[in-house]
Amino acid sequence: ATGTLAAPAIAQSSPEVKWRMASSFPKSLDTIFGSGELFTKYVSDATDGKFQIRLFAAGEIVPGLQVADAVQNGTVEMGHTASYYYVGKDLTFALDCAVPFGLNARQQDAWWNWGGGRQAMNEFFKDYNIHSMPCGNTGAQMGGWFRKEIKSVEDLKGLKFRVSGFAGEVLSKLGVVPQQIAGGDIYPALEKGTIDAAEWVGPYDDQKLGFNKVAPNYYYPGWWEAGPQLSAYVNLAKWSELPKSYQAIVEAAAAKAHTSMLSKYDAQNPKAVRELVASGTKLLPFSPQILEACFNATNDVFAQLNEKNPKWKKIFETWKPFRAEEVLWFRVAENTLDNFMARQSAAGKL
Amino acid sequence: ATGTLAAPAIAQSSPEVKWRMASSFPKSLDTIFGSGELFTKYVSDATDGKFQIRLFAAGEIVPGLQVADAVQNGTVEMGHTASYYYVGKDLTFALDCAVPFGLNARQQDAWWNWGGGRQAMNEFFKDYNIHSMPCGNTGAQMGGWFRKEIKSVEDLKGLKFRVSGFAGEVLSKLGVVPQQIAGGDIYPALEKGTIDAAEWVGPYDDQKLGFNKVAPNYYYPGWWEAGPQLSAYVNLAKWSELPKSYQAIVEAAAAKAHTSMLSKYDAQNPKAVRELVASGTKLLPFSPQILEACFNATNDVFAQLNEKNPKWKKIFETWKPFRAEEVLWFRVAENTLDNFMARQSAAGKL
Repeated sequence: ATGTLAAPAIAQSSPEVKWRMASSFPKSLDTIFGSGELFTKYVSDATDGKFQIRLFAAGEIVPGLQVADAVQNGTVEMGHTASYYYVGKDLTFALDCAVPFGLNARQQDAWWNWGGGRQAMNEFFKDYNIHSMPCGNTGAQMGGWFRKEIKSVEDLKGLKFRVSGFAGEVLSKLGVVPQQIAGGDIYPALEKGTIDAAEWVGPYDDQKLGFNKVAPNYYYPGWWEAGPQLSAYVNLAKWSELPKSYQAIVEAAAAKAHTSMLSKYDAQNPKAVRELVASGTKLLPFSPQILEACFNATNDVFAQLNEKNPKWKKIFETWKPFRAEEVLWFRVAENTLDNFMARQSAAGKL
Repeated sequence: ATGTLAAPAIAQSSPEVKWRMASSFPKSLDTIFGSGELFTKYVSDATDGKFQIRLFAAGEIVPGLQVADAVQNGTVEMGHTASYYYVGKDLTFALDCAVPFGLNARQQDAWWNWGGGRQAMNEFFKDYNIHSMPCGNTGAQMGGWFRKEIKSVEDLKGLKFRVSGFAGEVLSKLGVVPQQIAGGDIYPALEKGTIDAAEWVGPYDDQKLGFNKVAPNYYYPGWWEAGPQLSAYVNLAKWSELPKSYQAIVEAAAAKAHTSMLSKYDAQNPKAVRELVASGTKLLPFSPQILEACFNATNDVFAQLNEKNPKWKKIFETWKPFRAEEVLWFRVAENTLDNFMARQSAAGKL
């Protein structure tokens, strides 16, 4: 009797499962794409190869910006993506990834895990037939490459800037003309002057594309991406079909890939930024006046969204005080110590 | 034939395993102890309850500060601890957790995952029969509670300060008399004036112990704990006996508990710090002069260690340039954006 009972129980708890995961990223973004590879490896390792998820780069099954649709309609069971790619559907998607002057990477984790973010976002994602979980973060990104120096808010007027959706909406209030150009087309556009500026990711990824040769002014910080979270999307019906043990494994594997990706960027960016500066890149901060103007323009966009988008408003109303609390606390021990260490670095004492 | 082959294969890959995990922490440190509980739950969930790890609070099997020994000699298969508790054995342990003016939480992850930390530390841990992995972080801690204000380096002379091992060694160079007192004995000692000051963790944990009533000056930052990493220790022989799938599950579960703990502190500390200030706590920064003096004294201790401890020196020689690189990079996008947000917070604009 034991035998006849045991077999189905085992079959149920550790079934052979084969899934496909569409990445929004090309293999050339090796740190982001690689965190998807790590995720699928952890799942396979944890299940003795019984649960296999095959990862496809952007364009192999669907274009990178259609990953949400592919998961929603079940073309693939999973996706690895950045939720702000879908702000065209609804700007609320951005809260799962990054909004201008939003949470840094640690604060985003705090909001997701213990600040109600997980529940709020997955309630929102239900309408798209998606279960979402964090799977990577780049840390604060750079502000991008500019052919000419940007010394004042005036210099933003008419600037043709390749920049992502939400930031483009904010910057257009200051006269910027946002451009949407695929990664591979940025270099020639910058070289010819078809565009004046472009943002990509950070030193490690940017260095490989050689932007410094055609737009040597490298500005920071990328205030529209303080801690952009990458996401693993799962088709909701497929998620429900998984045994609880496989759900736990997927969640834990995503968490491991999540930390791994951020720490890989943190480990790789310093060398890249040093090399860029050594090869003539001018590393420049946006002036306080420019940051203030962008902050105020961002608040205008938030206010408009609160008026016209109830889904956004519902989440934003708890997100905003959470951000205020986080920044208040980080001002105490965390920032003070970071700033002390920064001064030792500037003084050549580290 | 299929039947006879299938049974042993399953038995081998998903055996019933029951382990014990000794925590260095009391249940009252609910966020730290709770991350151990989360870890054991994830392992159980991921294995359909086949791999059960039972967690014991400090003192239930062994005292909190003897967890390393208990794992080393196989009394328990696992421990959840802070490696700097074992600086009495060898100060090299501290690099697995925190050293004064060391890496912040994200930088520690970067060092561990991609900066050679994992390999270097686990090579060191072999001598103790331990396999170690990150399992939590508190973020930058506070500098502690002081009965009187500390306005200059002079004020440190003769100060009886309850402070952990490595920091005590540094502070004694500046005249502090470090005290070792268990958590539960701190309050009465501060009240009676047997000690002048005490550090514990951060606002969330400190608030519960009521230190503000007897030592109202709450200093920051805790420069000796910029990003203290908690660790899950596994007895090396027991680790080798685990199926590869269980090893993968343990690693991923530890990673999930790791992020969960840091983000829980980040989510809980803001409310606690606000309430402490509202109830009369004086929140005070250590002066730049005091921080400089402590930084210099720390470098003296590092130099001594390099001379007398080859195990320390071997790891420190790659750790120190890694720290310099991390701080250099954080000065660019990350700190600039954090500081801009801090200014908005101070101006009441968040």
